Amino acid sequence: MSERKVVLVTGGAGYIGSHTVAELIENGYDCIVVDNLDNSSYESVARLKILVKRDIKFYHTDLCDRENLETIFKDNKIDSVIHFAGLKAVGESTKIPLKYHHNNILGTLNLLELMEVYGVKSLVFSSSATVYGDATRFPDMIPIPEECPLGPTNPYGNTKYAVEKILNDLYNSNNNFWKFAILRYFNPIGAHPSGLIGEDPLGIPNNLLPYMAQVAVGRRDKLNVFGNDYETRDGTPIRDYIHVVDLAKGHIAALKYLEKKNEEGICREWNLGSGTGSTVLEVLKAFCAACGDDIPYEIVGRRAGDVINLTAKPDRATRELEWKTELDVADACKDLWKWTTENPFGYQLKGIVDAFAAEEDNYDSRFITLGDGTKFQATIANIGATLVDLKVDGQSVVLGYDNEEGYLAEDSAYIGATIGRYANRIKNGTFSLNGETYQLALNNGPNANHSSVDTFHTKKFLGPLVKNPSKDVYTAEFLLVDPSENSEFPGDLSVIVMYTLRVAEKSLSIEYKAQVSGGKSTPINMTNHTYFNLNKVNKETFVGTEIQVINNKSVDIDENMIPTGKIIDREIAKLNEKATILGQSEPKYDYAFVVDENEKYDQIDSSSRELKTVVKAYHPESNIRLEVLTTEPSFQIYTGDFLSAGYHARQGFAVEPGRYVDAINQEPWKKSVTLSEGETYGSKIVYRFS
Amino acid sequence: MSERKVVLVTGGAGYIGSHTVAELIENGYDCIVVDNLDNSSYESVARLKILVKRDIKFYHTDLCDRENLETIFKDNKIDSVIHFAGLKAVGESTKIPLKYHHNNILGTLNLLELMEVYGVKSLVFSSSATVYGDATRFPDMIPIPEECPLGPTNPYGNTKYAVEKILNDLYNSNNNFWKFAILRYFNPIGAHPSGLIGEDPLGIPNNLLPYMAQVAVGRRDKLNVFGNDYETRDGTPIRDYIHVVDLAKGHIAALKYLEKKNEEGICREWNLGSGTGSTVLEVLKAFCAACGDDIPYEIVGRRAGDVINLTAKPDRATRELEWKTELDVADACKDLWKWTTENPFGYQLKGIVDAFAAEEDNYDSRFITLGDGTKFQATIANIGATLVDLKVDGQSVVLGYDNEEGYLAEDSAYIGATIGRYANRIKNGTFSLNGETYQLALNNGPNANHSSVDTFHTKKFLGPLVKNPSKDVYTAEFLLVDPSENSEFPGDLSVIVMYTLRVAEKSLSIEYKAQVSGGKSTPINMTNHTYFNLNKVNKETFVGTEIQVINNKSVDIDENMIPTGKIIDREIAKLNEKATILGQSEPKYDYAFVVDENEKYDQIDSSSRELKTVVKAYHPESNIRLEVLTTEPSFQIYTGDFLSAGYHARQGFAVEPGRYVDAINQEPWKKSVTLSEGETYGSKIVYRFS
Repeated sequence: MSERKVVLVTGGAGYIGSHTVAELIENGYDCIVVDNLDNSSYESVARLKILVKRDIKFYHTDLCDRENLETIFKDNKIDSVIHFAGLKAVGESTKIPLKYHHNNILGTLNLLELMEVYGVKSLVFSSSATVYGDATRFPDMIPIPEECPLGPTNPYGNTKYAVEKILNDLYNSNNNFWKFAILRYFNPIGAHPSGLIGEDPLGIPNNLLPYMAQVAVGRRDKLNVFGNDYETRDGTPIRDYIHVVDLAKGHIAALKYLEKKNEEGICREWNLGSGTGSTVLEVLKAFCAACGDDIPYEIVGRRAGDVINLTAKPDRATRELEWKTELDVADACKDLWKWTTENPFGYQLKGIVDAFAAEEDNYDSRFITLGDGTKFQATIANIGATLVDLKVDGQSVVLGYDNEEGYLAEDSAYIGATIGRYANRIKNGTFSLNGETYQLALNNGPNANHSSVDTFHTKKFLGPLVKNPSKDVYTAEFLLVDPSENSEFPGDLSVIVMYTLRVAEKSLSIEYKAQVSGGKSTPINMTNHTYFNLNKVNKETFVGTEIQVINNKSVDIDENMIPTGKIIDREIAKLNEKATILGQSEPKYDYAFVVDENEKYDQIDSSSRELKTVVKAYHPESNIRLEVLTTEPSFQIYTGDFLSAGYHARQGFAVEPGRYVDAINQEPWKKSVTLSEGETYGSKIVYRFS
Repeated sequence: MSERKVVLVTGGAGYIGSHTVAELIENGYDCIVVDNLDNSSYESVARLKILVKRDIKFYHTDLCDRENLETIFKDNKIDSVIHFAGLKAVGESTKIPLKYHHNNILGTLNLLELMEVYGVKSLVFSSSATVYGDATRFPDMIPIPEECPLGPTNPYGNTKYAVEKILNDLYNSNNNFWKFAILRYFNPIGAHPSGLIGEDPLGIPNNLLPYMAQVAVGRRDKLNVFGNDYETRDGTPIRDYIHVVDLAKGHIAALKYLEKKNEEGICREWNLGSGTGSTVLEVLKAFCAACGDDIPYEIVGRRAGDVINLTAKPDRATRELEWKTELDVADACKDLWKWTTENPFGYQLKGIVDAFAAEEDNYDSRFITLGDGTKFQATIANIGATLVDLKVDGQSVVLGYDNEEGYLAEDSAYIGATIGRYANRIKNGTFSLNGETYQLALNNGPNANHSSVDTFHTKKFLGPLVKNPSKDVYTAEFLLVDPSENSEFPGDLSVIVMYTLRVAEKSLSIEYKAQVSGGKSTPINMTNHTYFNLNKVNKETFVGTEIQVINNKSVDIDENMIPTGKIIDREIAKLNEKATILGQSEPKYDYAFVVDENEKYDQIDSSSRELKTVVKAYHPESNIRLEVLTTEPSFQIYTGDFLSAGYHARQGFAVEPGRYVDAINQEPWKKSVTLSEGETYGSKIVYRFS
């Protein structure tokens, strides 16, 4: 990990920035994203993390804020910079040119000054073909080579031009130090083929393709085509459209080129374009083909500042950067259509409250609320991929905290959290796998409980990846990359926790998937540790809750709560029996029950098994019924008699489906909790209300 | 006054800025100067005040400091801006381009943003012919018209170009609001014909003329001529040199042009040049003629970024601004030579400590120390044009305060200050002049003393104008413009207080000159109110001081200290008698003596009269002898029996030469204290030590 080169990506949450971050990580770089989120969304960074399966350091900072920017340089060892941040709307720039000049130039100057101070030499600059202005004013300058005289025709272009001059001036002042790649983009289009990231312009899109896409999904009435009286094959202006993934790869090529310049400086410009121009109508046709529909459009007057033809001569990049476009307009349209249909509102989450701690600039700490507050609603957090709150008909039925601090507190009781890698007790905290014996820290008398010190409940999961709901079904996917070097457990583990909220049927499903991505086999046994309280009035206690279980067969345990190997009967109502009523102090449960004592369970993936109702609970006062369903062979019931951490004893009860307690040390069950490379661990829990 | 238009002049302390301020005030504008003093000196502003006889508001602020800049816009009603501030050395700009871009561009952006916020529409921008780059690369572009394509060849030029673009972009965004005049200077040379202000480059001059001048006065060995292999008449590059006063006037012309554009916006460029090019060697020849000497020079290699010919086509300015140059290179050389010989170190004051309160950004409060600390040294302040300290052989012999606050304190005792308009008592605070009766506020029992509320001792004098000493003689000139609207006295008065310190003869001379510049006649009687203490050890008292006076005839006074009209003898030693010794509490003096009781003194200007020693004082312990000489007919001796304000009774004694007490109400003397338009009041006092 420490050998990865670190690239500071300014504007890394934006359209081209986010795609470049994806390519950078793909190519073995580490990224630090800095973005003021003025015209972008943190959502793109959250999704990038899921996409690249890696944490990405994020700073919510404006480059004009010198002091904040400096903390980034102070706190990180940065190898190079890719500088996307900047205002970029041509039309807007003609209305508020001061803001464009101030932002784009001061931001760059601050960045360069800090690079100088902190000895960071390499910068790839996001310039634009706009610096050429109307290249048709010269003979033989279409396609446009880098040597074409510059002459921007709008304030946005002037700011790009000004920055190019600054870079040249700076390089000339110290040409053994600085390494600058100036990339002049032609027209970036398309989206990541994953459908996870794409262009998400604020307000009315300025660019053709996003506008077209918004028309296609019904967000806009029709496309305006600005002028069909240009001297081109169909009268509409010609642009050199380039797939954003190709463009992103151009940055990697430029970065590698700069890296090869060891002790030599450089300041050089490269066009990033395909070399092939398309008219507006040609692109429209390609997009219609991709979405299988006609896009309504209207020819309107020419737009000020538009030029007839901006087609790149990309030969220099091909020759020197060994880069060329590999995707075409049709690919871009296809990927754009995927992005648009899967994210019709871009990164905007309709009906989802993304209450991550943005006010403290702690974007990693996200509390996301999904669903309908009056019917069924869940709040989840990426600390421990935790279920923070669950509301049934507006009433909270689980315990939880408002903020991350609650979950990180010393005495925290795993409330609502994902338990992993290994839920429940491991006898003496020790186990053997493939001939090696491991010893975990002890945190529960002589045992290790709930994974001891490397518990998932305090780990920050990546994401969640939340998409706009379809038919009242909300999904949120968390990812945890848990390398063995950060754990007492062997094996690099990759874990997905997927929450699915179905408002109509008032069910919340939690699915676990895990794989060993490298290294040795690991014990695994995951669950969710929600404490329920169905009481309506006096929520200080769950007294009066009626409870039934699928089976009263239970794992016998010794004085240290380790299974003796015997299965015994416990006094608790079964599903068809009159419910057990939880009273002021009795009955107390902290026992594992088995779903079917006759089954010898040894699967690593239970997820395809039948979901069975293992516990039912009901409170007459609220009239809320809870069913806990699972694919797992066992479940612990805990009446919270030792609950603390801001709560009281018996304020909530937990149902923790999972594998058999201490199975890793019990030969008949060991296979069901041992995950090796190539295998997939899976399980599923559903909380259903009525 | 309130009808004067207010121009904010950024960089107004600099070379072109200061000359433009002079022309602006000459043309009826008020100026606010803002300057970071990075490459300029407050001295130029102090001198400008003397030159234009007017206070000039000054802010020590960098335009990049947005907050400080905003206070200027908040605190003042600004009509227009002339924007000079900026880094301007071509050579330096190639070494530290980031600083050039940051400073010149951010400063301008801040300025424009604040202009927008505060509704200030007009700006004259100090651009440069450097934006053209090498205009000889095009056919027929010498002389250079404004239409010549731009192409700066160095970072300095790039910053000017960038600002021009910003102004154009901004104008285009709101072309009914903004009025921008972009002035492209060719090569400004020369200095103000007064010799008071001129070019004072920090360090080694970058420009030809200042360098030449420094060679001429011996500060540099020889002139380097960068290349004589250009294709010009003598091989040296051709520039269009323009007298700085002409250039300054171009700004007034541009400002007036913008003013004529009432409801219309404009953004337009004008060359300011003569239209005539001179080679380096031609200028050298002209300068040699002006200074009457040969300047040693050496031909060295070409300088990077230099172009062969930069001659203006100034037709547009002639046609539209109705401006053209009126002075030529010979005039410029003559004025430069005057400036250089009178200020061989520019604004740097060698051996003079300019301890104005710059650390508090209170540049108006100046404490300036002249002379040699071990021999004879005076400190003067512009608050009251006060003598703050006087050191004889390292020993302080006068009372005074360290800072302005001391002098502004309620109980201040006029210590060291200039007393005016009217020193000493006016009976009942009333007087009649030309048939009108005036009543002053009473501040001394039934009388007005030392001008009562409008006393000069708390007024801020302009300046001082301090020049480098010649032959150990130091001069400092204060100016006070005291309009009647700011005073209880009639008539607009203009006062000069000139201190001359002669180190060799240990004398400090104070000369007063005053004229009524408008309005009615005024009473006048000025003096200096220094308290002497020649004691060496116990400076808490002057006990032991031996004193003699020219004449023991004294003005008889009533119980209110107003002359009865009689002259009486007082007990005090005359010059040829055994000295009177000042004891612990006796003798007490607060009496006016007359130099010659037989003279009927009625002159308004005593300055051409014989200087007479009127008082001698000596302290045996310090062995310091003081002689007070004056051209005045009378002198008050006060043994400080009521001294307070941080001092004790009898800690210092004052000798106050002047006109007769209450002369304004005493017919025989009234003429000597009545100043009318066309007359000059004058007097002189000398403190001499041995």
